[in-house]
Amino acid sequence: MDLTILTDWLWTLGLLGLGVTFFIWDRLRKLPPGNEVMRGLAAQIQSGALAFARRVGIVLGVFVVAAAALLFVAAGARTAAAFAGGALCAMAAAFSGLFAAVRANVRTAEAARYPGLPAALRTGFSGGAVAGLAVASLAVLGAGLLFLLGIRQPGVYEEIRFREFAEIVSGFAMGASSIALFARVGGGIFSKAADMGADLVGKVESGIPEDDARNPATIADLVGDCAGDSAGMGADLFESCIAAVIATIAVGMTEATLGGYENRIAAVSLPLFAITVGLIASIAGVFLLNYLKPEKPAQALRTVQLAAAAIFLLGMLGIVFALGFDMADETTGRVYGYLGPFWALLAGSLAGVAVGALTAAFTGPAAARRIADASAAGPAANVLAGISAGLQSSVPAVLVVCGAVGVAYATSGLYGIALSAVGMLATVGITMAVHAFGPIADNAGGIVQLGHLGPDARRITDELHTAGKESGSVITAFSICSAALTAIALYAAYASWVGLEGINLVDPVVVIGFLIGGAIPFAVAALTITSVTKAAGAVIAEVRRQFSANPGIMEGTVAPDSAATVDVATRHALREMIAPGVLAVAAPVVVGAGLGVEALGGMLAGATVTGVLLALFMANAGSAWDMARQQIETGLVGSGRGRGSEAHAAAVVGDSIGDPFKDTAGPSMNILIKLMSLVSLALVPWLLSLPINRGAGTRDALEPESMEALLQVVTALFG
Amino acid sequence: MDLTILTDWLWTLGLLGLGVTFFIWDRLRKLPPGNEVMRGLAAQIQSGALAFARRVGIVLGVFVVAAAALLFVAAGARTAAAFAGGALCAMAAAFSGLFAAVRANVRTAEAARYPGLPAALRTGFSGGAVAGLAVASLAVLGAGLLFLLGIRQPGVYEEIRFREFAEIVSGFAMGASSIALFARVGGGIFSKAADMGADLVGKVESGIPEDDARNPATIADLVGDCAGDSAGMGADLFESCIAAVIATIAVGMTEATLGGYENRIAAVSLPLFAITVGLIASIAGVFLLNYLKPEKPAQALRTVQLAAAAIFLLGMLGIVFALGFDMADETTGRVYGYLGPFWALLAGSLAGVAVGALTAAFTGPAAARRIADASAAGPAANVLAGISAGLQSSVPAVLVVCGAVGVAYATSGLYGIALSAVGMLATVGITMAVHAFGPIADNAGGIVQLGHLGPDARRITDELHTAGKESGSVITAFSICSAALTAIALYAAYASWVGLEGINLVDPVVVIGFLIGGAIPFAVAALTITSVTKAAGAVIAEVRRQFSANPGIMEGTVAPDSAATVDVATRHALREMIAPGVLAVAAPVVVGAGLGVEALGGMLAGATVTGVLLALFMANAGSAWDMARQQIETGLVGSGRGRGSEAHAAAVVGDSIGDPFKDTAGPSMNILIKLMSLVSLALVPWLLSLPINRGAGTRDALEPESMEALLQVVTALFG
Repeated sequence: MDLTILTDWLWTLGLLGLGVTFFIWDRLRKLPPGNEVMRGLAAQIQSGALAFARRVGIVLGVFVVAAAALLFVAAGARTAAAFAGGALCAMAAAFSGLFAAVRANVRTAEAARYPGLPAALRTGFSGGAVAGLAVASLAVLGAGLLFLLGIRQPGVYEEIRFREFAEIVSGFAMGASSIALFARVGGGIFSKAADMGADLVGKVESGIPEDDARNPATIADLVGDCAGDSAGMGADLFESCIAAVIATIAVGMTEATLGGYENRIAAVSLPLFAITVGLIASIAGVFLLNYLKPEKPAQALRTVQLAAAAIFLLGMLGIVFALGFDMADETTGRVYGYLGPFWALLAGSLAGVAVGALTAAFTGPAAARRIADASAAGPAANVLAGISAGLQSSVPAVLVVCGAVGVAYATSGLYGIALSAVGMLATVGITMAVHAFGPIADNAGGIVQLGHLGPDARRITDELHTAGKESGSVITAFSICSAALTAIALYAAYASWVGLEGINLVDPVVVIGFLIGGAIPFAVAALTITSVTKAAGAVIAEVRRQFSANPGIMEGTVAPDSAATVDVATRHALREMIAPGVLAVAAPVVVGAGLGVEALGGMLAGATVTGVLLALFMANAGSAWDMARQQIETGLVGSGRGRGSEAHAAAVVGDSIGDPFKDTAGPSMNILIKLMSLVSLALVPWLLSLPINRGAGTRDALEPESMEALLQVVTALFG
Repeated sequence: MDLTILTDWLWTLGLLGLGVTFFIWDRLRKLPPGNEVMRGLAAQIQSGALAFARRVGIVLGVFVVAAAALLFVAAGARTAAAFAGGALCAMAAAFSGLFAAVRANVRTAEAARYPGLPAALRTGFSGGAVAGLAVASLAVLGAGLLFLLGIRQPGVYEEIRFREFAEIVSGFAMGASSIALFARVGGGIFSKAADMGADLVGKVESGIPEDDARNPATIADLVGDCAGDSAGMGADLFESCIAAVIATIAVGMTEATLGGYENRIAAVSLPLFAITVGLIASIAGVFLLNYLKPEKPAQALRTVQLAAAAIFLLGMLGIVFALGFDMADETTGRVYGYLGPFWALLAGSLAGVAVGALTAAFTGPAAARRIADASAAGPAANVLAGISAGLQSSVPAVLVVCGAVGVAYATSGLYGIALSAVGMLATVGITMAVHAFGPIADNAGGIVQLGHLGPDARRITDELHTAGKESGSVITAFSICSAALTAIALYAAYASWVGLEGINLVDPVVVIGFLIGGAIPFAVAALTITSVTKAAGAVIAEVRRQFSANPGIMEGTVAPDSAATVDVATRHALREMIAPGVLAVAAPVVVGAGLGVEALGGMLAGATVTGVLLALFMANAGSAWDMARQQIETGLVGSGRGRGSEAHAAAVVGDSIGDPFKDTAGPSMNILIKLMSLVSLALVPWLLSLPINRGAGTRDALEPESMEALLQVVTALFG
């Protein structure tokens, strides 16, 4: 098989995907944007989003240029270009969701007024679809970009082509990762700081209602919802998808199970086929929504996801069949069936569904009910019930990941594990579309309220909001588990590239690495929680300053300077992400150079296990608290409930604790564990050149015959 | 060297230690027990403790007999006897602290009245010393008991003597562990359930003050303080000490670094010498207190601990010198100095001191101040600040453990790691004495209040309480780190006994194992937090029942049925510990038999890393919240503080969340990770007989020449 056609295939599909995304975006843009109040509000949110995007764009732009310049000197033009390319794709993935969201919200509100639920659902989902398909298309295009960068450079010795390949792919992934780090951590800090700032000065100190136009932090709060949820999740999933593909290619190149040129070619092309088929399936899912009964929005959203997964799996069954795998484990003599890789994809895909279902069960109405009941005994009981629910919910999700790893390994070896991550993430387009729908529906509800569109419209947006929220907590858990699977895949790639015989947990140096790794997510969680508090303090100070400097704001005669508040929150979010970012990059360098490549492997494993568990704990506890508060507010449970009750006050405490848990600290873990793995992967050539690691690499990558097979594959890929 | 003299040495020292303990106890018993009110209260606490001890004794007695009977059938009389012996020693360690505490409290209160601070400090510390020296003496005697059980049995084939030894030592340790599990988990549940029950019905519902004699849960609350703190910590540290010694002997027997008969004999006898020297040093420390200036109680308590550590280290320097080690690593050719094992002991000992200092820094006044400041913004800010402080504080403690592991490994290999745990725990006598002093001083303060002994006496007990509390949080962190080091030592012993080449983290089955292992502490933390809530509910129901059934209680004409409340709390504590206990025993069986011994190794590593981090997080966050509340109450910080302020209400919420964190869920992790390691160790022979593990054991233990050396050592030990 001539692999060069893959490049064309990726570019074609990626551009097609972007075309569809633009088509949906254009249709969305032309929908009626509602009455004057709504348009005014929407304009404010849009200009807030623009202010956020501008400042972030400038700072990240400078960072990307500086980092690329550094890489240019250290590793050459292609690595620098790969880094910049990865960063740009991730930024595009993040911002497309943000800008679609701030336009879809007002149009969804208007559609809820007239013609009603079906149109509102479709409008809101269009906004989500723009975000989702942009992410998926950019992942495909990004993979195409890698190939472009890898085109044969005349005069380069073959021996260094592997190293070059490693540098390009990890450069690209790190570019994506650094943007994702900001979008997730920084976006999370921004969103929660604005939220807490708006609430504290507005509701508590000044006694004005939530989402009041006089509050200088209201717009920042609304922008934050989109920035944290849409932009953060978009960049996160984009990066997971790219990292999973890269890890699969890396393992496919070096894993002994895949001995033989034909197998290797099939192995490295399969994940690329998977993301294109996933993109097609996602597009099909997006259009399917128009033909579903819109009366039950939550069910419709589930249906399109399952349909996309089914289309994806059917397509992949055919492709795996066509590629004709013939894999065997030389050591154990085990022969894998020719459909082995398909089972790995299926395991990943099903694990994604199972994690969703389990999370729904653990943070859903029943769990929330227990927390709501406990709230009657005060805030401490509410917090303990939520923490207990969160801790508990992390266990089944981890077991599902274990199950996927086990099935994938049994059916196609180490390669299968990396592939299962691709299976989980290939339909990222539809997953992200459903997720991005949530904050749009939320925003739409706020606009309906402020635009006085009446109770009927509000009922519709409430229904959409509930449907979106339900899928929101599910998708957070999904993103964590996909990050876990990606981290395990990157881990396998790391071990494979270093050429370690193994990472021996009986070796005390590995144990030390393992313990250090385990502690890192705890440190980052502490940092991000503190950051939210600090940034919220800055927002509060800014709001107070505006109120006292300009009394006209409170009287409603002067518009507040929302852009200034957005700017303060953005500045702090950017500043507060430095420490976690430095830690994520420095830890692999220090441990790898100080304790060796094996200890670094231990560190990655330790960070993955505590990172995933902490992330699930925090995200799920946060969702459960949130839902418990809602249950009490809607008076669904017991007597003596509802707003203003003691139980409600307790539930608000839990919800406030849950906010930074689920929207900042928890999701930060995703990027942390992936970024550390990617940095380690990129460091492999440098680490192996250090005296401490002399003799560490003993397997595949450095053996001449493996190297030869590998170079054949690289040559086939890069022409 | 004839090792049989060690048996005599252990018995002599152990009995001597018990003699000193009894001497202190007898002197304490004869001190004046105060006025009638105090004696009445003390009698109630004592009878409450007795009721607790009786029920626990019966249930645990039945459990121990049943388990021993099972072991008798499965593994013979000696293993059964070892199990029962371990259980009895642990029970004695737990209860001696409890009974000394309930007698020392009232006498400390009386001494605070007259003659004053020096006498009160000495009296309180005498109570602590009884607990501490009992634990240390029992550890020495327990080791002696192991030798008694190991005496040559005529007609037994030499080949199975190793297996027999393994069964005896792990039987003993598991006996101790199951009691420790109850004392820590059950004691923690009891103590917090009684605490919450007393507070909620008493202070909140009925409006009677804290520690009011009319509240049927007051006595249970006071008993709980002693049960959780003294009994739980005593059994925990006893078990850590025994497990560390056993792990060191196990590694010493099988580790290749120690090739040569003389070295092995020295290696297995060193930990036994260490605990006897530690006992002597602890006794010296206890008596030293009488010669220190008592004006600064906290400083006096630190001084005796440092003095005991210094005596211990000096003694061990001589013994290591005398034993004449001559160790080398065959693989790397590295030769260790003859003082190598001393450096390992020193590393462990210093790590214990460092962990204490770090914890004091992270949960001390400065950290508490930050939490207290945050409290002004409400309960959510207080909780977030506490969680952030707890997460952060876990990092340096883990790094200290890493440092100890690194130094110990560098100076005397794998054996050194196990030995460093012994170095940390050998002076357990004085450590436990200082810790047990805390709840005694706390109780004494309550008795001074109720006995109307005046403000001068109260000032003295307050000072003692503060000194005790300070050391309390430090020692909780110490116990966690010692459990971590012990778990790592047991882990090395496990790998050594299974004879694994390594536990390969790249093997996906191991990855599955460590993910499962990592999730177990999360599951147990969720279980124990829920258990506290449930048990508290039962206590509340009982208190309400008594109030409504007998209105005379509220009028003060009828004494409440305190024993019934104690009984309810005890029953629930016993019931709620079943699930964590079953999980701790079942997980190694299921993973070892289902996924193999290597995956089980991964599971233990995963459980250790998340267990230690969660334990440190929870314990330290709890301490910090506690201290923040105190700071606000004493009005030390800022304006608008003090009882009744908004900030105080917020701090009370944090403190209530911290209680089950620091006294139940956090400490449970200690036992969990040690118990799972011990169960795994005990299962080694069975696991290796399973088809899935065929060919897994490939190193030392199963190689004929190693086996021969090992049998020589066993024979030398057991005569």
